[in-house]
Amino acid sequence: MADGTELTHVGADGSARMVDVSAKAVTQRIATAQAVLSTTPEVMRLLVAGELPKGEALAVARVAGILGAKQTSSLIPLCHPLPISSAKVDFEPAESSVRIVATVKTTGVTGVEMEALTAASVAALTLYDMIKAVDRGAVIGELLVVAKSGGASGEWSREVPA
Amino acid sequence: MADGTELTHVGADGSARMVDVSAKAVTQRIATAQAVLSTTPEVMRLLVAGELPKGEALAVARVAGILGAKQTSSLIPLCHPLPISSAKVDFEPAESSVRIVATVKTTGVTGVEMEALTAASVAALTLYDMIKAVDRGAVIGELLVVAKSGGASGEWSREVPA
Amino acid sequence: MADGTELTHVGADGSARMVDVSAKAVTQRIATAQAVLSTTPEVMRLLVAGELPKGEALAVARVAGILGAKQTSSLIPLCHPLPISSAKVDFEPAESSVRIVATVKTTGVTGVEMEALTAASVAALTLYDMIKAVDRGAVIGELLVVAKSGGASGEWSREVPA
Amino acid sequence: MADGTELTHVGADGSARMVDVSAKAVTQRIATAQAVLSTTPEVMRLLVAGELPKGEALAVARVAGILGAKQTSSLIPLCHPLPISSAKVDFEPAESSVRIVATVKTTGVTGVEMEALTAASVAALTLYDMIKAVDRGAVIGELLVVAKSGGASGEWSREVPA
Amino acid sequence: MADGTELTHVGADGSARMVDVSAKAVTQRIATAQAVLSTTPEVMRLLVAGELPKGEALAVARVAGILGAKQTSSLIPLCHPLPISSAKVDFEPAESSVRIVATVKTTGVTGVEMEALTAASVAALTLYDMIKAVDRGAVIGELLVVAKSGGASGEWSREVPA
Amino acid sequence: MADGTELTHVGADGSARMVDVSAKAVTQRIATAQAVLSTTPEVMRLLVAGELPKGEALAVARVAGILGAKQTSSLIPLCHPLPISSAKVDFEPAESSVRIVATVKTTGVTGVEMEALTAASVAALTLYDMIKAVDRGAVIGELLVVAKSGGASGEWSREVPA
Repeated sequence: MADGTELTHVGADGSARMVDVSAKAVTQRIATAQAVLSTTPEVMRLLVAGELPKGEALAVARVAGILGAKQTSSLIPLCHPLPISSAKVDFEPAESSVRIVATVKTTGVTGVEMEALTAASVAALTLYDMIKAVDRGAVIGELLVVAKSGGASGEWSREVPA
Repeated sequence: MADGTELTHVGADGSARMVDVSAKAVTQRIATAQAVLSTTPEVMRLLVAGELPKGEALAVARVAGILGAKQTSSLIPLCHPLPISSAKVDFEPAESSVRIVATVKTTGVTGVEMEALTAASVAALTLYDMIKAVDRGAVIGELLVVAKSGGASGEWSREVPA
Repeated sequence: MADGTELTHVGADGSARMVDVSAKAVTQRIATAQAVLSTTPEVMRLLVAGELPKGEALAVARVAGILGAKQTSSLIPLCHPLPISSAKVDFEPAESSVRIVATVKTTGVTGVEMEALTAASVAALTLYDMIKAVDRGAVIGELLVVAKSGGASGEWSREVPA
Repeated sequence: MADGTELTHVGADGSARMVDVSAKAVTQRIATAQAVLSTTPEVMRLLVAGELPKGEALAVARVAGILGAKQTSSLIPLCHPLPISSAKVDFEPAESSVRIVATVKTTGVTGVEMEALTAASVAALTLYDMIKAVDRGAVIGELLVVAKSGGASGEWSREVPA
Repeated sequence: MADGTELTHVGADGSARMVDVSAKAVTQRIATAQAVLSTTPEVMRLLVAGELPKGEALAVARVAGILGAKQTSSLIPLCHPLPISSAKVDFEPAESSVRIVATVKTTGVTGVEMEALTAASVAALTLYDMIKAVDRGAVIGELLVVAKSGGASGEWSREVPA
Repeated sequence: MADGTELTHVGADGSARMVDVSAKAVTQRIATAQAVLSTTPEVMRLLVAGELPKGEALAVARVAGILGAKQTSSLIPLCHPLPISSAKVDFEPAESSVRIVATVKTTGVTGVEMEALTAASVAALTLYDMIKAVDRGAVIGELLVVAKSGGASGEWSREVPA
């Protein structure tokens, strides 16, 4: 981790750049990110309960998140393209919210935090899209990196706010 | 707004579908969404202050958000493609956070909430990407629709949590 | 329909072009296309039966088909971009095959056969991807336009081979 | 190849996932796939004969197939992104049909069957797009993997139906 | 045309934005742009002469240009998405150069200069890609708008440098 | 470099193909390309001077160029996908023109000239988009490879026309 006195993506003259990673080691890297969609108990029942016999709303969000992970370097300008070796998106429904947890792996020279965050946020936005007609006021929050491993900075994880 | 007893994007058998909007009126529609990136005062100084003479970090996030708005229907599976007629992304920096506000317009048959939300979230993720080496623990939250107008449901806005 | 003596997408000198549709009328247009994936009875049980409690394999293919429809003009070089107003993908499982039926609507100047065909083929390829480890020899066939309506050529449909 | 009792892309709980390939060996892999477009003898003459001095209709389909191969992991949700090292698309015209043969190579951890299938199907769809005004009833069939080599499953090929 | 004292894509505070075109009239608009690739007489013979019986090098560049036109709003950040109603790319070979001429039409609220320029430049880059192994020093120049019509500014054209 | 008697991207029968690079060595490769946008002194003042306190016009073009580099293999049909390890775009403003210089690195089997050229041209087109309302007659020229290193052909550079 840098010493906090400079942004790595900005050159000495303040111009943006894609950081040179050509000297970094190829290692296996994993990152897990999450987002929380807060809505109403009624909407949660629609999303996960028997009214939707195939549970397809969550499946749509899951696919969107996985595809979103693969679009990360097209969406985030200074992000490096990475060969993703696995991606999964899981849902933990609660009474009036659902936690979306995305885990991405690569064997490459940079970490996959951005891929995991993109997967979590695209999955959350896809859920919002499907419920917005019944709860326009739903909120997405706590979009953050839960844990990462691999690379020079090694293992890192955080307490997730309850 | 629907009556809350069904999800519009899911058919009677629980299968996902892209809602048929062919009978909806073409009107001018506007939506504003936001996200808040919470970090440290030091990082905020790096993002907006004199050390970055060109303020280019915010410009990168702004461009990413605008481009992201145009990718919405490729990212969100059941979203309709829309001819966006304007898009802007603004930043309101505070001591240890920055509020990202995205406003999108269209003249079309569906609203642009998803485009505004996508712009706000991609801009927020782009900022996170640029600061993650100095504050990996930064959090994106309060990603929500602030206001919308146009279409059958007319004007709508919400109080934004302070 | 042309008189069969020329290809509309190729100029008098044999060069390819995107046909000029600027003088065509904006009407509502619908097209339905299909594909059939032929595999084994065992694989069909895996795809649709109780072992997959969420039926998520079909949901993944459905989402892929809908997203594929929206990518049609990026994939098919001489195809016009179209504002799709609805898209759905359904599955009709049989003993050792599954029929994929895609229906797409637009309000525009060109038909949506290519969008429906692209949806059906991407959904079929997605199913193949999920079963290839257990039945590499599965075959996709009968990819064809079932019916179309709207535009100068009016209603058209065909008998689908049984 | 799996033992046929489970789908590799679906977890124990039935949820879809991108299979973890991080432990697989990097080897050279090749796959060949085909599709057959069936139309009329008149259309075949238009597609390949002297009326089109530059043969540009086939060239358009070839380019579309090659570009399609590179979009595979964006189209097929659970497909891994791969660095394609070569791609070609050939045509074998017959009296009232044309066989499209696509061969793709990579040096990577997963096979390229999906890339070859995507190339063949996008090329076939592109041909259909160019002939649909003269033969809307044309059919694409026999979309299948002809042969593959490399990786743990070694060489594999099949008899192609005549 | 603006009075030359401000950039339309930059707000009063210097921040970039996608200009609001929601009040502009929908009219038919056409733009023609060009680029010139300068190389050697030998390479020109390879590109257009009998050694390439199918003339496929130019066809590849033509398709790339047409597809590129459709990607314009994804590539140029502040460009509006437009429903292109036709696109063509022609080549005028000379002794040691080839002029690429792209013409794009739309029925919409903004002009299509950027689409025509993007088509011309992507076609020129595609030609360069195919000849770079034999003439790495080839140069692309004179990339400019030749003519445009439609919209508030009416007809406009320029003398093209000989 | 080939001997100038054939185009590498075209097979013996004149058909286009993506060259097989599976036997090429993985080495670090760098390429620098440029483009020059010629406009008026007034426009140059708008682009770079105090009227635009944040210099955001150049930042927008820079981001567009970097994102464009990552889209190269989607835009140029016979180009191989590459894991870009760094990309930067710089501007050298003169009295009535601005030189755009793009440098791209990879560790891979093919060079990155096309990525550098694509970055330079997309950045130039983005600048044109922002100034076209005040100088429609601006011209992009001298789009060329300045230098490359890595791979079998080693170091190469050229004099840039003054």
